[in-house]
Amino acid sequence: MTGAAPVAERPRIAPERHAARLDGLRERLRGAGADALLVGPGAELLYLAGYEAMPLERLTLLVVPADGEAVLIVPRLEREPAEGSAAARAGIAEVRSWEETEDPYRIVATALETARRSGRGGDGPRRLLLGDRLWATFVLRLREAFPGAQLGLASETLRALRMRKDAEEIALLRAAARAADHAVIALATGRLVGRTEQEVAREARARLVAEGHDGAEHAQIVGSGPNSASPHHTASERVITAGEPVVFDIGGTLGGYASDITRTIWVAASDGRAPAPEFAQIYDAVRRAHAAALAAVRPGVTCEAIDGAARDLIAAAGHGPRFLHRTGHGIGLEVHEDPYIVAGNGEPLDVGMAFSIEPGIYLEGRYGARIEDIVVCTADGVDVLNEAPRDLMVVSG
Amino acid sequence: MTGAAPVAERPRIAPERHAARLDGLRERLRGAGADALLVGPGAELLYLAGYEAMPLERLTLLVVPADGEAVLIVPRLEREPAEGSAAARAGIAEVRSWEETEDPYRIVATALETARRSGRGGDGPRRLLLGDRLWATFVLRLREAFPGAQLGLASETLRALRMRKDAEEIALLRAAARAADHAVIALATGRLVGRTEQEVAREARARLVAEGHDGAEHAQIVGSGPNSASPHHTASERVITAGEPVVFDIGGTLGGYASDITRTIWVAASDGRAPAPEFAQIYDAVRRAHAAALAAVRPGVTCEAIDGAARDLIAAAGHGPRFLHRTGHGIGLEVHEDPYIVAGNGEPLDVGMAFSIEPGIYLEGRYGARIEDIVVCTADGVDVLNEAPRDLMVVSG
Repeated sequence: MTGAAPVAERPRIAPERHAARLDGLRERLRGAGADALLVGPGAELLYLAGYEAMPLERLTLLVVPADGEAVLIVPRLEREPAEGSAAARAGIAEVRSWEETEDPYRIVATALETARRSGRGGDGPRRLLLGDRLWATFVLRLREAFPGAQLGLASETLRALRMRKDAEEIALLRAAARAADHAVIALATGRLVGRTEQEVAREARARLVAEGHDGAEHAQIVGSGPNSASPHHTASERVITAGEPVVFDIGGTLGGYASDITRTIWVAASDGRAPAPEFAQIYDAVRRAHAAALAAVRPGVTCEAIDGAARDLIAAAGHGPRFLHRTGHGIGLEVHEDPYIVAGNGEPLDVGMAFSIEPGIYLEGRYGARIEDIVVCTADGVDVLNEAPRDLMVVSG
Repeated sequence: MTGAAPVAERPRIAPERHAARLDGLRERLRGAGADALLVGPGAELLYLAGYEAMPLERLTLLVVPADGEAVLIVPRLEREPAEGSAAARAGIAEVRSWEETEDPYRIVATALETARRSGRGGDGPRRLLLGDRLWATFVLRLREAFPGAQLGLASETLRALRMRKDAEEIALLRAAARAADHAVIALATGRLVGRTEQEVAREARARLVAEGHDGAEHAQIVGSGPNSASPHHTASERVITAGEPVVFDIGGTLGGYASDITRTIWVAASDGRAPAPEFAQIYDAVRRAHAAALAAVRPGVTCEAIDGAARDLIAAAGHGPRFLHRTGHGIGLEVHEDPYIVAGNGEPLDVGMAFSIEPGIYLEGRYGARIEDIVVCTADGVDVLNEAPRDLMVVSG
């Protein structure tokens, strides 16, 4: 395994970007008639404040009023890391901590009142947007604390911002994709026969980290033989043998941004390198569907049209009902986020949108094949971030 | 590092236990006047159904009606793992999957209607209890789908069940605690001087897994020198030197159940083994506070009284304001869960409750010390699951 790239060479999100994101959000909050956005630990907080908070039963909440300064409310124990966040260091979010026996919802109310005094008037907030991933325990307590407020979801304003990646975000997604390319090529060309799927999945996690990922959170799928036909199979104790396919669907995060790549290979039998004809046929259909979806990407084309481009080809090959899932998902600080490349999603693609293209065909109990790349919609087409070969690799294993 | 214990020797939760848990829950739902409990991926689902689900933007929901069969609603892609869950295999939860373009909330409505036909009548549910960790995106959609229902939190009925651990749960907590003991002793007696906190934290994670943990999710705290004075410090690039303390606060999960141990050691200087007098003084106060809290544990004593037992001793030593956090937290499938050992919590301890005892003193910018063990309340006192030494270890590092 090659060593990780030195941290200093990595692309990073400049603090000014967080200020621009908060400003963009405030504009959208006013457009949505919302008094404020309230988000807890997770991708939403990382996106807006550059704060990677622990998910705790104690309330951590970034309050962004439509007309006022952002306040980052944290338990006393988390004051130090919160003050180290990009937004706090840049002076664009004020950190307020609460003591173990204090009521943090009063601090939320104060943050909202201060904003209202400096902005619009009235009695308490009328509309609050809550982080999509905020836990029910906080949702219901906020509802109690602000009984007059209508509650909506943060994604109403945030998704449009988060879907369109800027140059720094694309640089991070590309760095993660390249690292995942190296990991998957090393796995595919390494020893496989006689090892369990779990052993290979452990190697996948180690390689992702060795290639520069901070964590290998999504590297559970190594599906061999009939397990390749289960799209969300988790690596098992099954021993990989010669004369069967293996699906690797692995990824992690690098600088907060996710990688996610799938390659399907054929492990040759000792008495002949050719893959089973039935497998070769589905692989070929998946390969063509993948290429058709890539070719369809450009601004203005809808998400469902991209899905359709892949699905039509697979249907024409006679395997429509065996393409069990959507063609792709957006990717960024979360491995699954907007936009979803699925039937029924009429959202048009726009420059900067990053998502997976991952058609697959699954013949239950026999074979499955899937090819997945991360792509970005550009002004004149598509930027494919992964570079690992897509033609069927037949390996000795 | 010693090898992991073979999986076959591990304690495990028998499928019958899930049936008993569901029955206990139904009784409590009826007592709470709730039609059903609805929980998503996480500890609640693992506790009730033995199903370790991926946290996805697609709805995964266990619906447990007060008067009817449990239904596990999962996206089509997750059907196979859901059918492998303990509850599905034991026939005590029916798996219903939804297709990519289907509305899963209709399936929730059907599950609730079926239960109502077989039980109480009426138009739609009147009271639903939602998993405390359920995401806002699902909470708000359920509120739309069932506008006539009052929404409460699952913990209203689940916490009393989950707080009282049965023999199998205690066996798993003990196995996790012992594995964490071995890991922390190995770290404390290994090489430290000249290594960064992050290097030692990586070793901590590797040792936890080598000792039998499935994951080392909570092994970020290695605090050396002045960093020991920050209770939730995250391992940094700081190089550990001789003549300073190091706090290790590490844990992971084993068979789903969490470990969490803290030990503070003194790395001796080359010209003298004695710790700094100021550090020795705070360590001694923490050691005595820890012992006092342990000694206070028995059924009927309140959580806040346990907190008080530790806090009074630290206050008497003149460091009251420097004990910045509660004395402990419950532990089980989550590393922080009920009961919380904190001022204001008048809940009396009961047999089977498992929690941490972890007093600390933090002299900002200088030294900190904390000692943490996991304990279980027994009929006649306390069962301390950790066995690593608590007297101050002075090491050569």
